[in-house]
Parts: sequence; C-alpha cells; structure tokens
Amino acid sequence: MPVFNVYLPAERFTNAQKYELSQALPQALNDALDIPADDRFVILTEQTAGNLYLDPSYMGMNRTDNAIVITVLFTAERPFSAKRRLTRAICARVSTVLGISPDDVFIALIPVPKENSSFARGELQLVTDQP
Amino acid sequence: MPVFNVYLPAERFTNAQKYELSQALPQALNDALDIPADDRFVILTEQTAGNLYLDPSYMGMNRTDNAIVITVLFTAERPFSAKRRLTRAICARVSTVLGISPDDVFIALIPVPKENSSFARGELQLVTDQP
Amino acid sequence: MPVFNVYLPAERFTNAQKYELSQALPQALNDALDIPADDRFVILTEQTAGNLYLDPSYMGMNRTDNAIVITVLFTAERPFSAKRRLTRAICARVSTVLGISPDDVFIALIPVPKENSSFARGELQLVTDQP
Repeated sequence: MPVFNVYLPAERFTNAQKYELSQALPQALNDALDIPADDRFVILTEQTAGNLYLDPSYMGMNRTDNAIVITVLFTAERPFSAKRRLTRAICARVSTVLGISPDDVFIALIPVPKENSSFARGELQLVTDQP
Repeated sequence: MPVFNVYLPAERFTNAQKYELSQALPQALNDALDIPADDRFVILTEQTAGNLYLDPSYMGMNRTDNAIVITVLFTAERPFSAKRRLTRAICARVSTVLGISPDDVFIALIPVPKENSSFARGELQLVTDQP
Repeated sequence: MPVFNVYLPAERFTNAQKYELSQALPQALNDALDIPADDRFVILTEQTAGNLYLDPSYMGMNRTDNAIVITVLFTAERPFSAKRRLTRAICARVSTVLGISPDDVFIALIPVPKENSSFARGELQLVTDQP
C-alpha cells in the first residue's frame, strides 16, 4: 500500500538516479518490513529552487541544496518499531542511490488505515472480512 | 471537504478529459455520500514517465501506462461502508471519463478530522460547537 | 515538523511573493504555537488553470482565480484550540503576502503523529523515550 511522494530539487539528479530511487523505496519496504518488492507506487516531483524551501539546519542537521522530502502513505496500524526500521531503511537506500547525505533526507509517514486503500477496481482490498 | 489530488501520466489525456475528471470526482462524492456537487476541490498533477512508477501487476491487477493515483483528503469520521461506496463511485466515474480500465485507478483516502479543515478565512467551518 | 504543500495558480505570483510565502508559513507557526521560525519545510506547486479546480462559492465564500490550497502535515497530538490559532495565523499571513482575499485560502491540516517524522538520518527525532 505505501505510496511514496518524493520532492526533489529539479535538474540535480539523472534519469538513471530517479529510476534507481523508484526501486530503492520498495526495496526499503522489503528490507524493513518484508513487504513484497512489487508493492511499488512512487511519484516523483521536481521542484525548482523558488518552489522548495527546506531549512538548512533545523534539528541540528546540515542540509544542502540536495535535500529532499519523502512522504509515505503508510499503514496506520503499524507500531513504532516498524516505522523506525522503515525510516532507517529508506534513508540508507535513498542516500546511497542519489549520492546525498543522510542529513538531506526528510521523511514523513502519513498514517492511512488499511481500510482506506484501493489498489484498483474501486475495492478496498486490504479488508478481508468485509461486511 | 474532500480535496482530490490526482497524479496522471503527462500528455495522455485531453483538456476536455481533465475537465470532465474534475467534475467526475465531486459527482462520485454525490453518488456515494450525497455530498453537494459544488464541494469541488481538485488538483491535477501530470507526471512524465520518469517521474511515475506504478507496479503493473501488484495485487493481481493489470495496470497499463494509463494508470493513475488519486489521493483524497477524506473525513476521518466516516465508516467503512461510506469509504467503500466512495471508492467504487470514484473508480466507476473516473474510468469512464478518462476511458481507462478500472485496474488503472489507485485510490487512497487520507483521513482528516472535520476539525482540521478550513474552507477559507482561517476558520474551521465544520466544527459547529466551537469552544 | 509541519511540512507545507501549497498549490498555487501558475504565473500569478512573483518570485518575491513566493519567497515571502515561504517565510510567512513558518511565521504563522511561530505566531500561533511558538514553534521556532527555522522549522521551515515548504513545497510550492504551481498549477495551470486546467489542473486546478476550486469551487468559487462552496461554504458561502467568494473564491477567485487567486484561490490556493495549503495542506499541512501537522502534529496529530495538538488540540482543537491550537489548530484554530494556526489556521487563523496562516490565513492572515498568507493573504497579506500574496495580496489575496482570505476567501481564497483553503487549508487542510493532515494529522501526523510525532513518532512518524524523520527530520533526517532516518531517525524519528520527536520520540524522546525510544524503546
């Protein structure tokens, strides 16, 4: 179910890197949570400098012009331990494929209950005992 | 309140289709939930192929290059039955106006409590008994 | 933590206005909630007319072609009073810097628990007593 939205600085990463990024994110789901690697729904959005403002140092980080934001529509029912494994795996995979610092990877997990996701056909496939 | 974000493959749909899509989404709210048809807040984002990665078969579907993702900021207080009616109505309406397969329509409902929406003026209009 | 996504009509606001907008949003957090002004994570997205549909009058408003949508990834744990202070502050600051009517400012606060945010390095910094 996770859907990734990644906001990247425009014209900074190659097409090959963007493709690798689209693979790295489901790989992180697999690393952290054993989610099948074909659960792959990734939306990239490229932002010009005038349309992206990420503080360079908030929370003691050293963010650069490479900094990105990743939001993830993520199963609300997962515990904290799963979230921490996932954000660690995302940061590790993404910083590697994009060649950026771990300080440049901001992640927010947006909770979405299982019963709120339709993979297609208008059905809510993750609810197995539907009334 | 629902706000729709639709991520579409770029240069695949006509302006007329995009306009019809913007009408179809509030019509689906009306079909499923009797929400007034002028509750219409729709944001379309067109994605080049290198910026959109949707697995072609996950969960037993047959997704094509027409596949789209729809996220909906949706009232958190609604029950499962309302969600199912809504995702079915969205899929039916959208696949018709865009001329795409129901397999190509991914939907995620992001829960937003009523007290979190400001339709304008900085007020939270859906809370009627404000302290 | 708050991350702002702002959907603006394209080619309507100057670069200077967009920069001021990026400052006004964290200033609103500071006005309303004493959040440090360097907690600044702002993503702007410019929408052509065919990609943005906001009803001109729903809920008794008078929306124009200047109308914008702001979504905020906002701490789920905050009470209603904090939300109301925040949406009022956002509307006041934003309508001023963009020179638009308060009727043209739609805001939705998307709840994100503190334990879901990684400011960098894959860690979930807002959880202080991690198991």
